[in-house]
Amino acid sequence: MDRTDFIDRLRQIVGERGLLEGDEVSSRYPGYFMEKVESRLMVRPASTDEVSEVLRLCNEQDQSVVTQGGMSGWVRATQTEADDLILSMERMNGIEELDTVNRTVVVQAGVVLQSLQESLEEQGLIFPLDLGGRGSCQVGGNAATNAGGIRVIRYGMMRSLVLGLEAVMADGTVISSMNKMLKNNSGYDIKQLFLGSEGTLGVITRLVLRLFEQPSSENAAMVALRDFDSVARFLRFMDSRLGGKLSAFEVLDASFYGINTGPGRERPPIEGDYPFYVITEALGFDSTIDDPQFERVLMAALEEGIIADAVVPKSQTERHAIWQLRENLEHVVSDLQPFQAFDVSMPVGDMESYMQAVTARFKASWPDGKLCFLGHVGDGNLHIAVGCGSNAAGARREVEHCVYEPLASIGGSISAEHGIGLEKKDFLSLSRTREELELMQLLKRCMDPRGILNPGKVFDLTR
Amino acid sequence: MDRTDFIDRLRQIVGERGLLEGDEVSSRYPGYFMEKVESRLMVRPASTDEVSEVLRLCNEQDQSVVTQGGMSGWVRATQTEADDLILSMERMNGIEELDTVNRTVVVQAGVVLQSLQESLEEQGLIFPLDLGGRGSCQVGGNAATNAGGIRVIRYGMMRSLVLGLEAVMADGTVISSMNKMLKNNSGYDIKQLFLGSEGTLGVITRLVLRLFEQPSSENAAMVALRDFDSVARFLRFMDSRLGGKLSAFEVLDASFYGINTGPGRERPPIEGDYPFYVITEALGFDSTIDDPQFERVLMAALEEGIIADAVVPKSQTERHAIWQLRENLEHVVSDLQPFQAFDVSMPVGDMESYMQAVTARFKASWPDGKLCFLGHVGDGNLHIAVGCGSNAAGARREVEHCVYEPLASIGGSISAEHGIGLEKKDFLSLSRTREELELMQLLKRCMDPRGILNPGKVFDLTR
Repeated sequence: MDRTDFIDRLRQIVGERGLLEGDEVSSRYPGYFMEKVESRLMVRPASTDEVSEVLRLCNEQDQSVVTQGGMSGWVRATQTEADDLILSMERMNGIEELDTVNRTVVVQAGVVLQSLQESLEEQGLIFPLDLGGRGSCQVGGNAATNAGGIRVIRYGMMRSLVLGLEAVMADGTVISSMNKMLKNNSGYDIKQLFLGSEGTLGVITRLVLRLFEQPSSENAAMVALRDFDSVARFLRFMDSRLGGKLSAFEVLDASFYGINTGPGRERPPIEGDYPFYVITEALGFDSTIDDPQFERVLMAALEEGIIADAVVPKSQTERHAIWQLRENLEHVVSDLQPFQAFDVSMPVGDMESYMQAVTARFKASWPDGKLCFLGHVGDGNLHIAVGCGSNAAGARREVEHCVYEPLASIGGSISAEHGIGLEKKDFLSLSRTREELELMQLLKRCMDPRGILNPGKVFDLTR
Repeated sequence: MDRTDFIDRLRQIVGERGLLEGDEVSSRYPGYFMEKVESRLMVRPASTDEVSEVLRLCNEQDQSVVTQGGMSGWVRATQTEADDLILSMERMNGIEELDTVNRTVVVQAGVVLQSLQESLEEQGLIFPLDLGGRGSCQVGGNAATNAGGIRVIRYGMMRSLVLGLEAVMADGTVISSMNKMLKNNSGYDIKQLFLGSEGTLGVITRLVLRLFEQPSSENAAMVALRDFDSVARFLRFMDSRLGGKLSAFEVLDASFYGINTGPGRERPPIEGDYPFYVITEALGFDSTIDDPQFERVLMAALEEGIIADAVVPKSQTERHAIWQLRENLEHVVSDLQPFQAFDVSMPVGDMESYMQAVTARFKASWPDGKLCFLGHVGDGNLHIAVGCGSNAAGARREVEHCVYEPLASIGGSISAEHGIGLEKKDFLSLSRTREELELMQLLKRCMDPRGILNPGKVFDLTR
């Protein structure tokens, strides 16, 4: 089949509205996307059947397919080459069925996370996944990348929130595994294959998501700590007193805190210099109980000397200001320009020595370079912002070695939540054994024998 | 290699203590095991290396291998034929590393669940999986069957509690995926393949398990309700007031309640006849707050007319007595003799019509037969006890049709937590699509090409 026939056939499947070519494709992408968009051919299917027909055709024609959701990942997992076909999920954005008794919602993969969140507000229910890209990311992409975010400590990652899904395999076979129950042990849990595999094993088209009751009380605090041991102690202290209510436990090191509270920036909520700050949050269902309990627990932590200082915001505005200290990345990006960001994880007990090892190694090469750490300590997840002063490929690569290599000996992960994509695949063997990588390759070959789905992402096929 | 050489080779691998033959094997199994034990050859490896060598040899020799843990499953997933080799995990029962900072424990697969639970008591930590078989089941078996139990509503099933694992594939390859972090998106999450696949894709040898803070407050109540709608409303009512603290929500129908509170049995804690009873439990960290809150919430449910009556036990003895009404299965087994037990799940909103459909169909065939329902409503999980009056194979099979067939149209599962084994495989297609079953077969062929691991369990290979 020549290219014209192929495109005609695609048009027959997805209709005139469903096919974009040439500049229509490239003009859709604003410049700030990390991903290169070389492809000049996009299909926008409106149904699972259309996805299935598109894939069957592509598989016959050995046509590579890159599925795109909100394009807000950070690892170039949706980057395209000139000869790739883009499969955009944007038209499959329906919320199909909300079941308030079973507390599940059936959605198409292209639903934007924030739209879903907002659609639930009146029901007293929440879909608890939340992350910075909420306004653009799609739930299908959240599933394909096993997204995390700030409330994993309480609600788990996307993998725990997806009860069922429908996916289309490379040959067009539709796998409908739309389970709605928390408990279902009827054979292999095959949805797990598609979760977190970054579009390399199938295209997720629909999902059953687990919903939770909307909490009605919210408490937060910013806390200063004298050392990292205290951070780890404070985590267990909070969790052993607030239990199921603890929903966030975010650490900021002095460097990050200093950047965001610098002259003309946010007002520092805590005076004095400390090596670590923590923003912690609890969500509950009765503020008459939860508010005084939260303050009492913080007071006890102060009295026991676990924390050095604490500030509890008294209004939504004050609470927002404290979260801004964590979520505003604008100053760190500008101060550390050219900027590199990392997302790694490790056992909590290894975090301090890891931060020291990375800092020492980095400073040995770039004495004037800057780096800072922040992260979801409760999940073992550190984000690292680095500015070595150079944007040269060699320097950037050397920084990557600085950050990733110390992970190997402590069983850490080169990607806590962002995935591998193209960005990290050269380092994957630091976090995974040869046998694991071979098993991944075996799965890929068995589920996508012609290798049409997102080729070259996560790992390269050997042989 | 003839049989004698094969056994000699096994003995070289696992040592004299590690090999049992003939009556040594069969004498180890008390009569009450559901499983037939026809095999007369068992290896008891003491290390992952030994498991690996055993499997490599068996794979070369096309020798089928059935891995056995505590043998306390309910679906004959560890049953053996005369020519199977039993691989017992009982000697791999070490707790290797407890990390109280990261709140993880590394264990060998043969550790008995209750031993693990008890070993954590002094640390203020819990491993929250709990089920009736705790005294005999092994954590490796819990993982291989994705065990559930009574606290899934709060802590999730085994799949959510396993952070990492090591497994040996059919050809002896050791897959070490001993992740210790809540967040790790570095490539495919291959541990998911081994969780819940009932020993058909690999032998789990070691695990990293997630631990939680030990709650210090415990509240429970037995509640009577006027209809099933109220049960569903009461679940949301409790969850929206106790949020992260709700840990159990167990329903008993009038029939089950009646059997356990019959003459000479437990004292009925609630007088009067109701169609449903619920035992609910909340675990928290401050009884000065939690106890009055729990009572206040129950009082509100009474005042709003959601529940008809409630009893709150005032002592550990009273609490135990209430749980006995749910956990004591002795009377139901004797009253319904010959007894059949089922474990199914479905969306909560479909439970009532499902119970009605099963009852109507059952009573049409056996007007004098007895059946009763109990279950973990919060998880969509119903257990059904049936006594049709006959133990004939045909009658038993007809009861199975009664229970399983109404699941197909509501997207229910023939196995909520027990798995498939041999017991349910004839019905698997009621809960899974043809495409799902074909994908399971594809995985099995790709990971165990000679089909030596627990052959014939979960499904039969076609062609």
